[in-house]
Amino acid sequence: MGKTISEKILAKASGCEGVTAGEIVWAKVDRAMMDDILGPRVEISEKIKYLGDKIWDPDKVVIISDHYTPPASIKQAEIVKFTRDWAKEYGVEKYFEFAGPCHQVMAETGNVIPGSIVLGTDSHTCMGGALGAFATGVGSTEMLGVLATGQTWLKVPQTIKVTWSGKIPAGVMAKDMSLKTIGNIGHAGATYKAVEYVGDTIHGLSMDERMAITNMAVEMGAKVGLMPTDEVTKEYLEKQGIIDYPVYKSDADAVFCEEYSYQAEDLKPQVACPHGVDQVTDAENVRDTVIHQAYLGSCTGGRLNDIRQAAELLKGKRIAKGLRMLVSPASNGIWRTADEAGYLKILSEAGAVILAPTCGVCVGLHSGLIASGENCISSSNRNFIGRMGSKEGKIYLGSPLTVAASAVMGRITDPREIM
Amino acid sequence: MGKTISEKILAKASGCEGVTAGEIVWAKVDRAMMDDILGPRVEISEKIKYLGDKIWDPDKVVIISDHYTPPASIKQAEIVKFTRDWAKEYGVEKYFEFAGPCHQVMAETGNVIPGSIVLGTDSHTCMGGALGAFATGVGSTEMLGVLATGQTWLKVPQTIKVTWSGKIPAGVMAKDMSLKTIGNIGHAGATYKAVEYVGDTIHGLSMDERMAITNMAVEMGAKVGLMPTDEVTKEYLEKQGIIDYPVYKSDADAVFCEEYSYQAEDLKPQVACPHGVDQVTDAENVRDTVIHQAYLGSCTGGRLNDIRQAAELLKGKRIAKGLRMLVSPASNGIWRTADEAGYLKILSEAGAVILAPTCGVCVGLHSGLIASGENCISSSNRNFIGRMGSKEGKIYLGSPLTVAASAVMGRITDPREIM
Repeated sequence: MGKTISEKILAKASGCEGVTAGEIVWAKVDRAMMDDILGPRVEISEKIKYLGDKIWDPDKVVIISDHYTPPASIKQAEIVKFTRDWAKEYGVEKYFEFAGPCHQVMAETGNVIPGSIVLGTDSHTCMGGALGAFATGVGSTEMLGVLATGQTWLKVPQTIKVTWSGKIPAGVMAKDMSLKTIGNIGHAGATYKAVEYVGDTIHGLSMDERMAITNMAVEMGAKVGLMPTDEVTKEYLEKQGIIDYPVYKSDADAVFCEEYSYQAEDLKPQVACPHGVDQVTDAENVRDTVIHQAYLGSCTGGRLNDIRQAAELLKGKRIAKGLRMLVSPASNGIWRTADEAGYLKILSEAGAVILAPTCGVCVGLHSGLIASGENCISSSNRNFIGRMGSKEGKIYLGSPLTVAASAVMGRITDPREIM
Repeated sequence: MGKTISEKILAKASGCEGVTAGEIVWAKVDRAMMDDILGPRVEISEKIKYLGDKIWDPDKVVIISDHYTPPASIKQAEIVKFTRDWAKEYGVEKYFEFAGPCHQVMAETGNVIPGSIVLGTDSHTCMGGALGAFATGVGSTEMLGVLATGQTWLKVPQTIKVTWSGKIPAGVMAKDMSLKTIGNIGHAGATYKAVEYVGDTIHGLSMDERMAITNMAVEMGAKVGLMPTDEVTKEYLEKQGIIDYPVYKSDADAVFCEEYSYQAEDLKPQVACPHGVDQVTDAENVRDTVIHQAYLGSCTGGRLNDIRQAAELLKGKRIAKGLRMLVSPASNGIWRTADEAGYLKILSEAGAVILAPTCGVCVGLHSGLIASGENCISSSNRNFIGRMGSKEGKIYLGSPLTVAASAVMGRITDPREIM
């Protein structure tokens, strides 16, 4: 019987050939990532003292202070300091801070490699599947065990196969593919499953676009969102000097628990309405919704392609009066590239405010919370009630183009309306 | 008997010719500025209802949400929303938000004119004296009266004359002149007095540099810091289309209560040590002080000249490992100009993180607080205990060049050491 990518990666990581969905394996971990909010300070720093008081392999651990940078309170500042000091004390040299959301930093710094097992204390760790890694989020207790032993137990997941065929229309983005898929499968429709994205549309996507899709696999409950390892993957990794890695592909006779197929040509800009990521509809169906804040950023929608497309749409235009647009590139590297290309200047001239790379806005920790009665359109990944500020505010998720178009019009806008 | 600038401006504003220091006058207010932190939401919004429930002249009122933008909590977001809604309700069209510190926004938008009376609910309103305005901070209660009547009572202040002569050495900035003066006069040495800066050094300063000095007049307790209205003033205002204004000059036989004279050639980079703005010494005297955060920004030290000089120093250099450098341009306009000139890119390449324009860092509200045991070198205006975060942290004030040099070395550094 054929095998899926997940089965193959977990067979290798566990040393148990031929493992099949449903089995539980002990897998060796290639990268263990902790952030500041759910990293060392939560349980780990105290309990690791009783588990040998050292990390199994500090070179395989990455620590990233991203949620509380720049700190908006003394408490946040103390957590960042604690995280920084802890990394130093335990010999973790791969420590980053004020650098942007962890998943983007991980991908940019050679810490996500095809066929590897990547665990992180943040749910959107599944983004790493765009690079062919079995990447998934774990809680702090689980991470504690990983730090002590270098291993974790995993149930080999069943796989849902999602096929996208054809060419994406102008004005439509990978984020719309992601929202469309989530709307169909539902917020719990892929719980403890892998989602494998295939088809010519996927191969045609840049790595930036792929990450916008796999990032949100967890919004269907998925353990990981996987994409094929192809020329795009190769090119992305080569720039980091990474040329040696296994290439896994699901066999033709692999068993998928569910299959979905979409024609990209039919896709329209999508919006996830409050308060569920799967409350998805065509943007044009909610076009009367007044918007107070437009957010372009995060590990889902703050990469170069996102900023470029938004800038191209906003060039020579002005954001609506009474609306604020906040832009937070997903890393300092993206900030610089977008700046060099003139995109940040275009956005600023259109009236946007350019923030530092951070998780703060997306998760309502700082850098731009919304008040009661305010609606936000966001290129980020979650519209849970109260996530970005007041529980009496509302969050709509859309593509970077939809965010930009809505910022111009002051209401939710299908970007094709003004392109 | 000759008159000082303050006596002349207040004579005109009160309609009482020949008023002299010590007299109390009722003065007509030309601009009343409120920010978000001490503006409408504090007392004003409630009590104005009993005072006619309208503003004497909405065109003379400017409201700027700058301390809580971008909001770092629901409470901050609600205050910004309240401020925005209140401005609209009371017909204040000069409303700005997410635009940078109020004093810079006021100066950039034609709201500070020579010879005018400018009141603001922020202590550094005195910065407006660089443009020859009698600009001073007032409490919210006082502002309430101004909103109702368009007038305020003011004791005509005595004037301290500060003369700077000669050329500033390379590596030394206007901020060093400011700190030197404050160190001598003391934090309460100019209480309820005007400080008038004169001399050829002052005439040789750009408007950016002048503002770095008058901004901190209040750090000596001064009501206002005044500078001559000259060609530099004219050029600055002409760009805003302002050509018609009175030019006041202190008479040759005007009475000054104190006089200080400095030779610019003798000036070295200065640092104000914790926890007092007047605890000033030469930077080289504290060169062993380890720095964890370097802050370039605020209404004192975030203007184009500040960013340019810091960028020129940091070009091709890297900030020290383990130190973070945060840069917040003083307005969106400065952000764009600095960006276009390539300064922001240089700073980012050196390892700095570019924040949005905001008051947040300077006053410890958000965007980069320090933790216990951390030292910050800052181009801002106050090093009071706990102002920028933990009370167990320490703030050192220096020029933008000193901030940049210290960021490179990881300890307080006289910029001439590495220029």
